[in-house]
Amino acid sequence: MTDLAQAANDAIRSASPALYDLLSPLGRRVAFPPDIPFQAAEARGRELNGTIGQITDGRGGAVALPSLVSALDGLPPERRNRALLYSPVEGLPELRAAWRAWQRRGQSAARPSSLPLVTVGLTHGLALAADLFGGEGRAVAVPSPFWGNYRQTFATRTGARMLSSPAYRNGRFDPLFAVRALADEPDGEPAVAILNLPSNPGGYSPTPEERGEIRAGLVRIAERRPLVVLCDDAYAGLVFEPDIPRHSMFWDLLDAHPSLLPVKIDGATKELSFFGGRVGFLTFPFEPESAAARALESKVKCLVRAGLGSPVATSQVVVLAALESGRAEAEVEEARQLLEARYRVLREALDGVDRDLLQPRPFNSGCFALIELGPAVVASADALRRHLLERHDTGLTSIGERHVRIAFCSVEQRALPELVRRLEVGASEVGSS
Amino acid sequence: MTDLAQAANDAIRSASPALYDLLSPLGRRVAFPPDIPFQAAEARGRELNGTIGQITDGRGGAVALPSLVSALDGLPPERRNRALLYSPVEGLPELRAAWRAWQRRGQSAARPSSLPLVTVGLTHGLALAADLFGGEGRAVAVPSPFWGNYRQTFATRTGARMLSSPAYRNGRFDPLFAVRALADEPDGEPAVAILNLPSNPGGYSPTPEERGEIRAGLVRIAERRPLVVLCDDAYAGLVFEPDIPRHSMFWDLLDAHPSLLPVKIDGATKELSFFGGRVGFLTFPFEPESAAARALESKVKCLVRAGLGSPVATSQVVVLAALESGRAEAEVEEARQLLEARYRVLREALDGVDRDLLQPRPFNSGCFALIELGPAVVASADALRRHLLERHDTGLTSIGERHVRIAFCSVEQRALPELVRRLEVGASEVGSS
Repeated sequence: MTDLAQAANDAIRSASPALYDLLSPLGRRVAFPPDIPFQAAEARGRELNGTIGQITDGRGGAVALPSLVSALDGLPPERRNRALLYSPVEGLPELRAAWRAWQRRGQSAARPSSLPLVTVGLTHGLALAADLFGGEGRAVAVPSPFWGNYRQTFATRTGARMLSSPAYRNGRFDPLFAVRALADEPDGEPAVAILNLPSNPGGYSPTPEERGEIRAGLVRIAERRPLVVLCDDAYAGLVFEPDIPRHSMFWDLLDAHPSLLPVKIDGATKELSFFGGRVGFLTFPFEPESAAARALESKVKCLVRAGLGSPVATSQVVVLAALESGRAEAEVEEARQLLEARYRVLREALDGVDRDLLQPRPFNSGCFALIELGPAVVASADALRRHLLERHDTGLTSIGERHVRIAFCSVEQRALPELVRRLEVGASEVGSS
Repeated sequence: MTDLAQAANDAIRSASPALYDLLSPLGRRVAFPPDIPFQAAEARGRELNGTIGQITDGRGGAVALPSLVSALDGLPPERRNRALLYSPVEGLPELRAAWRAWQRRGQSAARPSSLPLVTVGLTHGLALAADLFGGEGRAVAVPSPFWGNYRQTFATRTGARMLSSPAYRNGRFDPLFAVRALADEPDGEPAVAILNLPSNPGGYSPTPEERGEIRAGLVRIAERRPLVVLCDDAYAGLVFEPDIPRHSMFWDLLDAHPSLLPVKIDGATKELSFFGGRVGFLTFPFEPESAAARALESKVKCLVRAGLGSPVATSQVVVLAALESGRAEAEVEEARQLLEARYRVLREALDGVDRDLLQPRPFNSGCFALIELGPAVVASADALRRHLLERHDTGLTSIGERHVRIAFCSVEQRALPELVRRLEVGASEVGSS
């Protein structure tokens, strides 16, 4: 353990003993080392600066290949230059500030949230959280079915244990999935819960009443053990029913219980429809510049540097252009409306399917609809998926033995009824075989 | 262990028992799972495709925010679309093929190398190699001083042990650093050696004779243990003396010994002077589509997906534009000449320094010059660094107790003599204190 790691751990323990208990062995031993990026940060603005191994004109200008830089002609010169050079390990300061303002739309100034750390897409934020709070044997509560990559990110990489409980009971969303998933864990043992709302693969966002039940359930867990709640807000804002809240549950969980630490993981991937850019963010429930926020930032920066050096400057600059345009909110609303129109068509088509073949789960948000196979379908979900590929020129995703996911975000509105028709025909064909 | 991981391990063991022995526990348990990206790849080209959670018009076109996409106006429409959407986990196929051709300039067609996997910058390639071949207790041989981030990437993250031996003996580069670093390791125990040439922080590339000695030394190691040699080719091509070979030692090590596996880690970061883009590559010593290449690709894709989803499409498209322009090689040569001119000025300035204060180590390539403090300097390198910051408006990097690194890649040519003058004055000031 380095002195820097020890100091960071001490700062975390004084801010929140539960948070310290939640740190994995790797999470405890990391702290941003005083090497090149650290020294380069200290040398910024000096007349002569020979700290960083990036090729410049000696005055901060990139030495760019003309054939490469012409692809970035859409950017103003100063921004193009920054797109070519290294980003700080924590991300571009303007982007961090702009995203924080974006996250906090409609939230009271009194609610604490750190300056977000920039990650390489949302999954990278999850992986950093897994490094900090996962590790051998750590319990991670998720609803079932869940996004399969959680297993790789938490269990395969760090050795954590995925504990799941059905996301739906009697056809309705279960707000107590985490309570049930952790029911058999011994008291005192730290745990992680993942709250992915709107959900993947479910496409579900809870009602105000269900939000209250989720919060109460998580508090019940935190009464028995330190609990970090990872709010995977990938699909934030993509809500299609007027009575369903759109804001992240991160805000509802601040100060819910001293042993409950919410962490917000979000990104431009879906929120700004910028899938290829890989710009995500990791945000902690502490004020910027607080000792706890600084200590966690040091740990995350060590992990980012060790894992990939620094986040992508090029796409950070692109995201910043959108956020600074003053038009992002209106443009995001347009994208939401496009998806809402598809959602309505898909709902109507699914309302008419034979429940013996297909049982749609409640959905109201996000990018997906989840269908459980009905009792008449004896084949597995993957057999149905392959049948649809081979016989009906249609690609869907199978999840586990009994679920099929429709990503309506990537299908034209007018094609959705036909897609549901093929799915139903396909289910009847494989079901009766 | 999943069936897929078992199958990948079997394929690796039949191609190379040594390579199988070198895999870490994590390296053994990963294999690309048959979930969403896998199923999406199978569904490509279907009339209806509802597999991927990215927002499109339903015909493969991005639903882009106008305020965001305008930053990418320098790209032709088809490429702009791809810059906005997810990259395949392994990278864009055209970029993989183009970079393979770029890597193999001047190499015989008979020498095997896989289709490179795209990583998020060169460090990410190192971290993936650390995940595959590192792990608790694994010996990693490096010359000393070495780039400090190796410690975070291999030791802090995975628990490997850094074993070092001086990079210079009697003021000359030591081609046997890895032999010496591993001398006390028990026979049969697998090991990793990192070959970073041109070197950071040394700025050194070996002569043809030294290359022969390096190769012979690594073969000696491989006679006693399975050995993976990670060729960190960050600074590939940046060589400033005519009699020093420019090609990667990866090519010299292919077929050197059945227990010696070279892996090539390189990227557009320095080679194409695109620091902010985070485009790197990981290449194995097997033919594309061979069973071993496929098995390693499956493992790397699982790690990439688990750690950050997919690499950056936006900057891959930018790199591809440069490689397809037909001008990249000439433009890279121009950047090399710019650095060569700085190198000559810096060498001349360093030739004149007082050896009691500053002992420049031999350098001929890359981005850096490394200076060891002379016997008259009693202060530490970091004290000298801070003194230069505070008194001489000059930023340099301290490495360990006795070394200072000059990144001449980021200093103007005409400023270099003044930088050396300040360094010498600073050394005399802290030295005499």
